[in-house]
Amino acid sequence: MSNNENKPDLRLLPLGGLGNIGKNMMLIEIDDQILIIDVGLMFPTSDMLGIDVVLPDTDYLYDRFDDVTAVILSHGHEDHIGALPFLMEQGLNAPVYATALTRGLLEGKLSEHKLLDKAKLNTVTADNELLQLGPFGIEFFHTNHSFPDSVGVSIMTSLGRIIHTSDYRLDDTPADGKPTDLAKLEKWGNEGVLLMTADSTNAEQTTATKSEKIVEESIEEVFRNAEGRILIATFASNVGRVQQIIDVARRQGRRVGVIGRSMVNNVKVGIRLGYLDITQDELLSTGEMESLSPSEVVVIATGSQGEPTSAMVRMSVGNHRQITLNESDTVILSASPIPGNEEFFNRTLDNLFRLGVDVVYHELAEVHVSGHGGRADYAKMLETVKPQYFVPAHGEYRHLVLHGRLAQEVGMPKENVFVIEDGQPIDFNQSGNGVTAKRGDLYQSRDVMVDGLGVGDIGNVVLRDRRLLGQNGFIVCVVVFDEIDGDIIYGPEIISRGFVYMRDNDDMIRDAEKLVRKAVKKRASTRVRSGKVKDALLDFCQKEMGRRPMVLPVVLEV
Amino acid sequence: MSNNENKPDLRLLPLGGLGNIGKNMMLIEIDDQILIIDVGLMFPTSDMLGIDVVLPDTDYLYDRFDDVTAVILSHGHEDHIGALPFLMEQGLNAPVYATALTRGLLEGKLSEHKLLDKAKLNTVTADNELLQLGPFGIEFFHTNHSFPDSVGVSIMTSLGRIIHTSDYRLDDTPADGKPTDLAKLEKWGNEGVLLMTADSTNAEQTTATKSEKIVEESIEEVFRNAEGRILIATFASNVGRVQQIIDVARRQGRRVGVIGRSMVNNVKVGIRLGYLDITQDELLSTGEMESLSPSEVVVIATGSQGEPTSAMVRMSVGNHRQITLNESDTVILSASPIPGNEEFFNRTLDNLFRLGVDVVYHELAEVHVSGHGGRADYAKMLETVKPQYFVPAHGEYRHLVLHGRLAQEVGMPKENVFVIEDGQPIDFNQSGNGVTAKRGDLYQSRDVMVDGLGVGDIGNVVLRDRRLLGQNGFIVCVVVFDEIDGDIIYGPEIISRGFVYMRDNDDMIRDAEKLVRKAVKKRASTRVRSGKVKDALLDFCQKEMGRRPMVLPVVLEV
Repeated sequence: MSNNENKPDLRLLPLGGLGNIGKNMMLIEIDDQILIIDVGLMFPTSDMLGIDVVLPDTDYLYDRFDDVTAVILSHGHEDHIGALPFLMEQGLNAPVYATALTRGLLEGKLSEHKLLDKAKLNTVTADNELLQLGPFGIEFFHTNHSFPDSVGVSIMTSLGRIIHTSDYRLDDTPADGKPTDLAKLEKWGNEGVLLMTADSTNAEQTTATKSEKIVEESIEEVFRNAEGRILIATFASNVGRVQQIIDVARRQGRRVGVIGRSMVNNVKVGIRLGYLDITQDELLSTGEMESLSPSEVVVIATGSQGEPTSAMVRMSVGNHRQITLNESDTVILSASPIPGNEEFFNRTLDNLFRLGVDVVYHELAEVHVSGHGGRADYAKMLETVKPQYFVPAHGEYRHLVLHGRLAQEVGMPKENVFVIEDGQPIDFNQSGNGVTAKRGDLYQSRDVMVDGLGVGDIGNVVLRDRRLLGQNGFIVCVVVFDEIDGDIIYGPEIISRGFVYMRDNDDMIRDAEKLVRKAVKKRASTRVRSGKVKDALLDFCQKEMGRRPMVLPVVLEV
Repeated sequence: MSNNENKPDLRLLPLGGLGNIGKNMMLIEIDDQILIIDVGLMFPTSDMLGIDVVLPDTDYLYDRFDDVTAVILSHGHEDHIGALPFLMEQGLNAPVYATALTRGLLEGKLSEHKLLDKAKLNTVTADNELLQLGPFGIEFFHTNHSFPDSVGVSIMTSLGRIIHTSDYRLDDTPADGKPTDLAKLEKWGNEGVLLMTADSTNAEQTTATKSEKIVEESIEEVFRNAEGRILIATFASNVGRVQQIIDVARRQGRRVGVIGRSMVNNVKVGIRLGYLDITQDELLSTGEMESLSPSEVVVIATGSQGEPTSAMVRMSVGNHRQITLNESDTVILSASPIPGNEEFFNRTLDNLFRLGVDVVYHELAEVHVSGHGGRADYAKMLETVKPQYFVPAHGEYRHLVLHGRLAQEVGMPKENVFVIEDGQPIDFNQSGNGVTAKRGDLYQSRDVMVDGLGVGDIGNVVLRDRRLLGQNGFIVCVVVFDEIDGDIIYGPEIISRGFVYMRDNDDMIRDAEKLVRKAVKKRASTRVRSGKVKDALLDFCQKEMGRRPMVLPVVLEV
């Protein structure tokens, strides 16, 4: 037993990514020293209107940024690094450890936030020697994921070893040729692992995720059959896929160009850091993409999710400044829609088909595979690491439950599997020869929403108003009374947006104004008259239109 | 050649369902007589904020409702019958032909719209004798779909036979025991078919859609393993699935109750019309659902799509008046999410898991299959009917293209396959011994949006305003000037919704008001002053908040 029951020997606290997809962030705390693994953001769900991005709730760290020993980043996806600039703006300035490409993309973000000079960045490799950071002995292991040089983390502590896989899959023939380092994990597993936290994203998936090699072969097959130009959209951060496309293009006698801001940027970083085997000079200019013989051209573009302002979407609606698609072009969408993006993705497909382009996508050919493993991979990981305790991470709640059940199926005792969500700490204490674990007191875990320059100022009231306004629009009704004789000296004037098309509804608006005039005829306080205006208009809208706009009376006395 | 080039001998005109999912409606016109097949509605896409439903564009029928010989309904889904009441309100009153259950559900709708007395409804069967309706000789054929007694339609005309499959699949062991009537289709196919229009919904699907029998077996397997109460959500119109559940329940010694308005209604209609083999008395009351031993209870509920106000969703958040879920319950979602519903569907799953309920859904067991066939079914249909001309129907544009390509793969000449969207007529003309077909002049095809009592009055302007309001909220700023001396006698007062949380931002609002006061100090026209107010506020919001609310200046002189 620990001396102080409220202060465990070791605390694991997930602040994001457990019970939601995105904003991954995990805290490990020993002796008031905090290690942070990943600081990701989440993209808003459909009910978070007008929100740019969502951050983890870091109130737990309020006034404690100085206690943070280090930040470890597993890979450079937004949902693992995207919130770091925001946390730095709030005061976090611990040293950051990441592999080269992750660091490279992070530098771009920090630079946009004008934080690059201040940040303490360190480059590590998957086979880095042990980094002793306070009470945390950090090592890494190579993983396969849709981001090159992704790593999982091992944290040796006085209570035992903790393994966090972060996002991963098993692939014998990955894009970079280096499979997830199971040998290292097996060694650690045999030595004994106190706790594992692991990716649960595909916990519903019973089939194996196919190899990246299959994707390369499928893409090459499309290349072989295409006579005209080839345009291919993929995630800008999937530098491994980009290299595969470059390789295929070379084999098939084509040259490659890139379009779309983040694709151009990431390819630049990838070349600079040696992740991409191509030089900047070899890349086609946008002029060459149009002027070269179509059979020699491959264009790699952003927009694999149908993102409205991306290069591929602009092309699909004939609205791209440099490139105009035609019937002899072949378009490959080398991605599948992330949950929530289906409508945009499908709309882009339909628009491409309308242009008569030959479109190849995941439903028709194996031109994409997930960067996450399936249940077989998860079982293999559990069997290799053999942790004493297990916390499923990275997933919606159902994924965590299913991953937790899987752990039991491979032999873990139920009481050693903690299916928890953001804000729920697990407290570990040395106890005789062993270590006990139990749920600690729950912390709050809000979605911290970013809208423009505001971080966390938007809450349910504003969101509810946005939802109502979006559904029904609003009416403002201005009436000005003379404060001496009580007569109307201006109005009633109705201003409305998002309710009816004003131009076509002049008569109706006049009727409503008449009604308001009648409702406020009797002398009364401004407050009472405001209520009358509101009631009259709501009633009118309901009866005449069957609608309930937001009604704001502006009743004045001057 | 026809004598009058503008008036073809026969015209096919799709008004809905081609290039979109839903609002299925097809016109066939001969000698100024119009046959309508299905009059469906569509649910709004995510960018149609505040819209209830979407109707086909029927401007083509404006002033021509008297030319409509008949309306044929293939089955009772909303996307095939839902727009009929709206069209009747606009003046359509031709006789309607439908099978009994379709008619039964339609009667409910017409009754709500107070149109039941006026409607001319006729019940038909799949093996009805030939109905000669003007120039149209109508016969039906039985199809398998997620609606009992679904039919396809054969229309014999002077130019030849037209076959419209409507939604269908092939299933050797369907819920009702009667497979799609390929024998009849083969006979017609051998006699010669001029034109086929056919369901394209699953044109991307290369695997066969599994049989309804598998679903029944999977559900029975869940029943066998469940010790407590079983709750199962499915589409209220899937009366065949409901019967399967009743059958399984009987075999497993359980009694069935139903909850959710549309489920209760449809089961009532299904019992009355003999589609369900159960009596109203046998159904459990909501009291019995809670009081009987859990191992004897099955509850069939609405909410298989995670619809916010449905019974299953209320239960999933502990907000149902009669039923409270507990850890010993088993919940089956016997459906898969329709495109666009994924977020609601998954949220419901997660909430059910949070309650500790054992949840079984399509990712974990075969508790649902689609009512639409896959490519193999489509190929079989094309090979059986062997039409001279083919128009893929019911699908997003990509589905139509893929179905059209499939027709060519099974041997149809490219020029006989018309991949068209709503509003594009195909004109057929007798020519010597044969019939030619060509695209006619394109008609407009808007989405006719219903919002409350308004039909078609909402257009792009209102939708754009709703989108902006939903994303950014609005600010109204009231300033009243004395028209004689030009001084401010009221305001500036800022009213805002959906922009910032007003209570927490008093200081900012005061700053903005100060800024406005400064901007309008100089005497100017109301119009100029309004512009100044708007510019000042937009500028302020951008600089202070990085946001762009809708700004409406209310500048008055009194």
